[in-house]
Amino acid sequence: MEMSRSPSQDENMGRLFVVSIGPGDLDNMTPLAKRAVDESDVVIGNEFYLDQIRPLLDRKKVVTSRMGKEVDRAREAVMLARSTKVAMVSGGDAGVYGMASIVLEVAQNEAPELDVSIIPGVTAATAAASILGSPLSSDFLVISLSDLLTPWEVIEKRLGLGFQMGIPMVMYNPRSRNRPGNLHKALEIGLRHARPDVPVGIVRNAYREEESFTVTDLGSLHEDDGMVDMHSIVIIGGESTKLLKEGENVKGIITPRGYHRKYIY
Amino acid sequence: MEMSRSPSQDENMGRLFVVSIGPGDLDNMTPLAKRAVDESDVVIGNEFYLDQIRPLLDRKKVVTSRMGKEVDRAREAVMLARSTKVAMVSGGDAGVYGMASIVLEVAQNEAPELDVSIIPGVTAATAAASILGSPLSSDFLVISLSDLLTPWEVIEKRLGLGFQMGIPMVMYNPRSRNRPGNLHKALEIGLRHARPDVPVGIVRNAYREEESFTVTDLGSLHEDDGMVDMHSIVIIGGESTKLLKEGENVKGIITPRGYHRKYIY
Repeated sequence: MEMSRSPSQDENMGRLFVVSIGPGDLDNMTPLAKRAVDESDVVIGNEFYLDQIRPLLDRKKVVTSRMGKEVDRAREAVMLARSTKVAMVSGGDAGVYGMASIVLEVAQNEAPELDVSIIPGVTAATAAASILGSPLSSDFLVISLSDLLTPWEVIEKRLGLGFQMGIPMVMYNPRSRNRPGNLHKALEIGLRHARPDVPVGIVRNAYREEESFTVTDLGSLHEDDGMVDMHSIVIIGGESTKLLKEGENVKGIITPRGYHRKYIY
Repeated sequence: MEMSRSPSQDENMGRLFVVSIGPGDLDNMTPLAKRAVDESDVVIGNEFYLDQIRPLLDRKKVVTSRMGKEVDRAREAVMLARSTKVAMVSGGDAGVYGMASIVLEVAQNEAPELDVSIIPGVTAATAAASILGSPLSSDFLVISLSDLLTPWEVIEKRLGLGFQMGIPMVMYNPRSRNRPGNLHKALEIGLRHARPDVPVGIVRNAYREEESFTVTDLGSLHEDDGMVDMHSIVIIGGESTKLLKEGENVKGIITPRGYHRKYIY
């Protein structure tokens, strides 16, 4: 399994790109990612992400997969890539809660000689952060509240330790269909360690149509988290996170990097 | 301070873009980031990052700043942006150990009405991860070992809690000129909580000339960390992180997302 990103030497050999398409529109997809799709004969992904790159799919064989069928999708991509060039597309960065790991696992087991390249992209955490201001400027934690692949007890343990660190925390999958109460329980753990007025930012549909964001605080979100949906990223501030204001108006949130310790400004 | 990303209504008004240029070359800079530079009259950054986007700088006023002068650079950008369009460029994602927070802080204090937009990019963590395989597939921690802006005691506390979480950890600034022993101390803390054979990946110059990576383990790196330099990102695996192999050859590292708990494959 070769991690090279340059074109294959042998045009007849198969190849598999796992392509990060970024957070929402072609404006946030890198040239390297676009080229990997352009060079591929087959593009595989779920409908939501294929729609995001629809202008690139003319004259491609497109294989649509359903959410929840990631293992099947990875297997199909690996099988097809034995004899053709395949792009498996994944939202945000494919290496963060995306398709990169399952594709590499399947390839390792079923086609270890296959040339697989992971193409990085703008991940949802930093895309959401850019809309809020700069909440992740220094150390931070990325955690998913979905207990589909990770037992809830493990997530709870991580949340407890994470909140003790006092650093910002990015929550992926804050709301899942089957366990709508996970966010409330996570915030409960947060309140054991953090002040209720710690700023919290919620970004919905970052860089997509109907993008919006809300700034609130830990205590208020614990009382009512109705504005958080499946397409939201929630960023809980750390000990030093502040509101970003213009006069009295809250414009976002920011975690200063600590220049005030070194400089006066 | 408006977070909008669309062009200003009034062509005569100033504007400030904080532009994430990605990990190493123009291939990893998003179209949105490129457009922000194209639309700007003045481009500010340190030499290293300006070199990375040199082809975009024809006919621009270029202001070069030195490493360690971030506050001055932010002030100058805010001052210039009162009357012209300014792009402050920052490597990787500007919101992660980059220029976004200090620019927003300075703007809030000195020019609260200024239109500041943060343009996201591919951050060094996921760029490095893509070269190693997929070490950050699930929850992970991002931490800097530089004690320039964060007291070392705080970093140590975070490392202790972080290693107890059992999730992968991305270390930025693993080697600084003034405190070369920080990495060794960090790994010492790691060995209190994690197995010595936890896989570790080191990526140097991701997506730049002379890119290279090394796969080792926590115990070995603790014994000899000579291969880690200022341009390295170190990714320490979590409890479930494994080597990615082709036969006996180590090709990278991977953190399975946990599909094996749900599926047999």
